[in-house]
Amino acid sequence: MSEIIIRPAVAGDVAAIVALLADDELGRLRESPEDLGPYEAAFAEIDGDPQHVLVVAEAAGAVIGTAQLTYLPGLSHKGATRAQIEAVRIGSAARGTGLGSTLIQWCVDRARERGCALVQLTSDATRADAHRFYERLGFRPTHVGFKLALDPPR
Amino acid sequence: MSEIIIRPAVAGDVAAIVALLADDELGRLRESPEDLGPYEAAFAEIDGDPQHVLVVAEAAGAVIGTAQLTYLPGLSHKGATRAQIEAVRIGSAARGTGLGSTLIQWCVDRARERGCALVQLTSDATRADAHRFYERLGFRPTHVGFKLALDPPR
Repeated sequence: MSEIIIRPAVAGDVAAIVALLADDELGRLRESPEDLGPYEAAFAEIDGDPQHVLVVAEAAGAVIGTAQLTYLPGLSHKGATRAQIEAVRIGSAARGTGLGSTLIQWCVDRARERGCALVQLTSDATRADAHRFYERLGFRPTHVGFKLALDPPR
Repeated sequence: MSEIIIRPAVAGDVAAIVALLADDELGRLRESPEDLGPYEAAFAEIDGDPQHVLVVAEAAGAVIGTAQLTYLPGLSHKGATRAQIEAVRIGSAARGTGLGSTLIQWCVDRARERGCALVQLTSDATRADAHRFYERLGFRPTHVGFKLALDPPR
């Protein structure tokens, strides 16, 4: 495989990131890559806030992986800042190559530099392969992740 | 019980919030209420960022509950903003009074006003009572929550 570059995303990456989000057994049911407008608006919000880093992995000029890293200040754990990772996706052609580990390790390294006390993420209960992957990287499945879907705004 | 007021926290609430965080079977092992400095610094960071709302429940002039609400923009789910709830604590004297429901519902209402597509939180796998509580409020335990503790910065 060619050299992997892990870097913050730029606006020109949005279409490629959305393609990755949609190239997934759960994502294909809920993404709409044919209308990039809502994604571009969300990117502008993420990009304008230094507490978020939308990350891409690039090889040979193509975006082949993505994740979102967020820094969360909080009072608990003696006022600890947490790093949270969301929306991790690896393109189907790059799965099994170690790219996921490289991407998560990049996020963990940024969290450590920032002085975070912990890194947290949730993974859909049906993604058994992902769970084994995170455990291999040292994450512990100590929590239950609850979600409440809200009606779309009227 | 006297009237409950749910409101954003102010700096003068920090000591009372830390007391709630420490009045908990897990919290008492990891909080240090005798040194408020790190908590005050974390409060300033939370209070200075409109993406966070540190919430308190007050009755008869005393803080008896707390939670932290965070708005998280993201590309997935068609560029949906999520609301995340962290650090929910109800003072031992107020448990079983319905205050927890009132506090979570306040957060869910704010999330709805903000146009969030979902509300998410994680709960330690050992907190079985909390899990039943969130399920009664309509949350679904669809995810596994992973944590990676980082070494303290050198």
